[in-house]
Amino acid sequence: MKKIAVLTSGGDAPGMNAALRAVVRAATYYGMEVYGVKRGFDGLIQGDIYKMKSYSVSNIISLGGTILKTARSVEFHSKEGRDKAFEHLRSRDIEGLVVIGGDGTMNACLRFSEAYSFPVVGIPGTINNDLYGTDFTIGFDTAVNTALDAIDKIRDTANSHDRIFFVEVMGRDAGYIAIQTGIGGGAELVMVPETETSIQDVISTLQAGWDRSKSASIVVTAEGNAEGSALDIAQKVKEHINNKDIKITTLGHIQRGGAPSAFDRILSSRLGLAAVEALRNGNHGKMVGIIKDEISYTDFKTAIETPKPLNEELVRLVEILNS
Amino acid sequence: MKKIAVLTSGGDAPGMNAALRAVVRAATYYGMEVYGVKRGFDGLIQGDIYKMKSYSVSNIISLGGTILKTARSVEFHSKEGRDKAFEHLRSRDIEGLVVIGGDGTMNACLRFSEAYSFPVVGIPGTINNDLYGTDFTIGFDTAVNTALDAIDKIRDTANSHDRIFFVEVMGRDAGYIAIQTGIGGGAELVMVPETETSIQDVISTLQAGWDRSKSASIVVTAEGNAEGSALDIAQKVKEHINNKDIKITTLGHIQRGGAPSAFDRILSSRLGLAAVEALRNGNHGKMVGIIKDEISYTDFKTAIETPKPLNEELVRLVEILNS
Amino acid sequence: MKKIAVLTSGGDAPGMNAALRAVVRAATYYGMEVYGVKRGFDGLIQGDIYKMKSYSVSNIISLGGTILKTARSVEFHSKEGRDKAFEHLRSRDIEGLVVIGGDGTMNACLRFSEAYSFPVVGIPGTINNDLYGTDFTIGFDTAVNTALDAIDKIRDTANSHDRIFFVEVMGRDAGYIAIQTGIGGGAELVMVPETETSIQDVISTLQAGWDRSKSASIVVTAEGNAEGSALDIAQKVKEHINNKDIKITTLGHIQRGGAPSAFDRILSSRLGLAAVEALRNGNHGKMVGIIKDEISYTDFKTAIETPKPLNEELVRLVEILNS
Amino acid sequence: MKKIAVLTSGGDAPGMNAALRAVVRAATYYGMEVYGVKRGFDGLIQGDIYKMKSYSVSNIISLGGTILKTARSVEFHSKEGRDKAFEHLRSRDIEGLVVIGGDGTMNACLRFSEAYSFPVVGIPGTINNDLYGTDFTIGFDTAVNTALDAIDKIRDTANSHDRIFFVEVMGRDAGYIAIQTGIGGGAELVMVPETETSIQDVISTLQAGWDRSKSASIVVTAEGNAEGSALDIAQKVKEHINNKDIKITTLGHIQRGGAPSAFDRILSSRLGLAAVEALRNGNHGKMVGIIKDEISYTDFKTAIETPKPLNEELVRLVEILNS
Repeated sequence: MKKIAVLTSGGDAPGMNAALRAVVRAATYYGMEVYGVKRGFDGLIQGDIYKMKSYSVSNIISLGGTILKTARSVEFHSKEGRDKAFEHLRSRDIEGLVVIGGDGTMNACLRFSEAYSFPVVGIPGTINNDLYGTDFTIGFDTAVNTALDAIDKIRDTANSHDRIFFVEVMGRDAGYIAIQTGIGGGAELVMVPETETSIQDVISTLQAGWDRSKSASIVVTAEGNAEGSALDIAQKVKEHINNKDIKITTLGHIQRGGAPSAFDRILSSRLGLAAVEALRNGNHGKMVGIIKDEISYTDFKTAIETPKPLNEELVRLVEILNS
Repeated sequence: MKKIAVLTSGGDAPGMNAALRAVVRAATYYGMEVYGVKRGFDGLIQGDIYKMKSYSVSNIISLGGTILKTARSVEFHSKEGRDKAFEHLRSRDIEGLVVIGGDGTMNACLRFSEAYSFPVVGIPGTINNDLYGTDFTIGFDTAVNTALDAIDKIRDTANSHDRIFFVEVMGRDAGYIAIQTGIGGGAELVMVPETETSIQDVISTLQAGWDRSKSASIVVTAEGNAEGSALDIAQKVKEHINNKDIKITTLGHIQRGGAPSAFDRILSSRLGLAAVEALRNGNHGKMVGIIKDEISYTDFKTAIETPKPLNEELVRLVEILNS
Repeated sequence: MKKIAVLTSGGDAPGMNAALRAVVRAATYYGMEVYGVKRGFDGLIQGDIYKMKSYSVSNIISLGGTILKTARSVEFHSKEGRDKAFEHLRSRDIEGLVVIGGDGTMNACLRFSEAYSFPVVGIPGTINNDLYGTDFTIGFDTAVNTALDAIDKIRDTANSHDRIFFVEVMGRDAGYIAIQTGIGGGAELVMVPETETSIQDVISTLQAGWDRSKSASIVVTAEGNAEGSALDIAQKVKEHINNKDIKITTLGHIQRGGAPSAFDRILSSRLGLAAVEALRNGNHGKMVGIIKDEISYTDFKTAIETPKPLNEELVRLVEILNS
Repeated sequence: MKKIAVLTSGGDAPGMNAALRAVVRAATYYGMEVYGVKRGFDGLIQGDIYKMKSYSVSNIISLGGTILKTARSVEFHSKEGRDKAFEHLRSRDIEGLVVIGGDGTMNACLRFSEAYSFPVVGIPGTINNDLYGTDFTIGFDTAVNTALDAIDKIRDTANSHDRIFFVEVMGRDAGYIAIQTGIGGGAELVMVPETETSIQDVISTLQAGWDRSKSASIVVTAEGNAEGSALDIAQKVKEHINNKDIKITTLGHIQRGGAPSAFDRILSSRLGLAAVEALRNGNHGKMVGIIKDEISYTDFKTAIETPKPLNEELVRLVEILNS
């Protein structure tokens, strides 16, 4: 394989630049030419492609976001769009594609690689950690550290005022960010989509804390909860508890940005190198990942379709340590 | 003066602990006894008072929140409440009181010091920087740095996606946090309560940016804006602009917590010492502050009633540098 | 088992408090009484022991250092010392001991548990990550993130001045902190004790960078290198290169402090719980750890005596990505 | 004035990019063309000059270092060097020059502006805060915050081990960074070049702390102290105190890097705008600064030659609050 392209797609995640750097450097090391595609599959459809060199990725390992920019492409859902995209690769003699993104992106990789028999390797880049085939996705550790830093700050205020805080973190339909933030922040309760927690459970847990003279409490809620947003949940709780000072904070997009953590930089570096070596070895149509601290390869279909359960050990930690 | 008391009141602010430490250490230095009052004026009413020593405030200079805890007292609004509070001071032979808090707190100081002819000195502690009689309140610099750190993270995401972000910061009726965060974060527009900015102004500014091929934009809004919250404003803008990806983030209570910045620790130390010296010198019934980098004293009435205009130079900076 | 004690020993590491909290909370959950021992084995010898409750460890999960304090005990090396320590446990009917510390500490655990047939479980707490029997020790991830933050700052200055920086990180005889910091910081070269790197190798690598017009370079060196400290190495390099601006920074003790990272808080929580459960299950005389993301148990002798090789995959990453 | 140039010179400081951005944006606002000069006066001598646009400085407000790079020019000390520099400006019809740097840089500005009657305005950019004519230099607040963050981390370790730490901060011949870091970090003692502190004073202060059962101590030393470096001082102290665990940390170049603080971004923005307006108004041959929170102008000779005394109020704070 002599020429490959690389793009970032879907929601951005800290570490995407570190992964991009690893792809460019590894390809250069193996004597390949590398092309960067701007704005995800939209850029591929429009031929927004440029040659990258080793120095094109200097000093980006510490940057949040993605220098290639990213987008969720509508046009790529049509055959016309994908045909154009393929033609831009073909006409440049590009023989392989590395794609960094989340599960919507891996879905697009599956369709594209099958339809055109084109070698594609995916790298899981999303803060949500909701992809099967890897224990950790790029950006997850940074997002958890950002959320934790926020919880530490909110704890200062909660303690000073004897308040209850409902803090909503990201994660889409997955509770990974919530559970790790909750353990690390010592939250009294964590509500995740994977487990049912009723409003009555929330009230009982808070009440048990007050009975032990705990004056301040933090409840971490994932955005995909059945009971709704942190605001919804807090309002339902308020109907039953009216003698307490209850506040709500939705952390929002700060969780997507910032310099990647050490963990994410190293994970990104490992996965970027692994993706290039997979293409080189003809091991494509797959997403690279890390399972039990070793590089793994999962075909796109399996990565997308297999549910990723929450680690039960973490759920137990919250129950035993934080109550 | 042999015995003084100190309390924190109203919303907590980073640096309150540093100010408390300075009060205790300065009083000890001058041979006074110091009593700490828990949970603001509520604790004073209930006699929740304990003796503090130099070591009581060891290692708290770097802590957010307030170890004395704080509250907004309802009972202190009644004469009965204030009578009880006074009695707790009188019965312990406490001769002076240092109160750290915001403008509601300074109002309480005014009423209490006048009604009982009791020596009170106030220290302006609020992230909002909305008190006349001081260029900077304790906690403001830290809150701005926290908001700025969030804006830097959001900028990563905004640039990666070519998005418009509306970011709401705190400040109650004042635009100080918004204007400083906006300048420091290079926001395309800052909306503050002190100046009228119509939805049409917002659209024109954003449009002018796009005309110069600016792809991502950040609008910082203060919580006290006439046009409403960031969510309200964004929805009104969306009615006129529908081809853009618009996101909203409300930073919320993270702005109140965290380790105080160097600026806030030094400001708190200066004001804490000044408050004790003011009590000692019979210079009470006043709020200490810092004006043009020098310690100043403003009587409570003036501090509460005089409006504090936004620095015009800062408004100009946004217009010239960020458009 | 009804009563257990816990202590921290050796050099402090961020996350020790989180582990201590997990031990206390898990023991409470299982209905055990828990005693905290101050200043490591010295405190045990002196009977500096107090009862801990669930609330004794409230709000410490985010604190660096150790609230129990720590020390390297000389007296514990003597039989008299150890006899006294044992007597303090015996006389209080304490049936098990959890010890958090590094490899000197695990050595002490081995001797003590064997000599008195006393149930001891160790938790690996050291920033150096140099203990066999666990992929990660408590404090390592935080130390790497702190070192990385420093490297990012130094990179700003290196780039602005076209300078070469030699940055020394901690790690004792192990290169873990160095290699991870080097990968994450994009260092041009990483010198670790596990691999021989001659001064000529350093010069060749730097020269190769200049040949590709790289103007600024960062060399990360571990403290245990055969060629000496960063200062020693830089001076030897200067003898051969005199037209370059070379600076040296030794990061030092900042790497030991600070709020633990999310990774370290969760690792500490898992290991703290596992240690209590191991004592409960009679699975003692061992160090708990994490291998391939699962809880593991290694007897003290094996943990101390088995060398822990550097992950070869990481060494390869530096060579391929950073040159 | 239609065309101006801008350069950064001397040691880099966080906020230089923010100042550069302000100069470019302000000049653009006033309809001027702006040229950026690379690598300080060296680049000016070599004609390394390029046209800058408003977008050239997009997203740099948050970056440490300087995108123009900086250097300490030897050649500029010669008339030949300065003649070449002048010729590069003259031949491009550049009518004014903004220079961002420390006191060596202001000296160069003085000589250049006088010799060629060329309009030059200086902006004080140095972490040392050692320039007369401004209360604060660009980079100082960030450096203090970075040093303070380090002290907070070291405090964790000092407290856990009951240790004495000698921590050396930057500042060249000035004690500003040391005194502010010392106050903010609650250091038991601060040694600055402006005040004589003997080894006996150090020992007495430490002893007084131990007499009050203070177990851990931090001494902050400025790099320009008469008694030498932190290492020198610690060794002299060790000769008299041998029953204590003494550690030394030299913070080094991390103090120069990192994202600028809010304070530095706003200061840089104000001074950048003021510099352009000064050139425009014919108010040149001067350094702009901020005195008592207002823009000030000091001629180069005065700025260089007048000593800047340490604020006595700060020295008093250390004595009263930290002992």
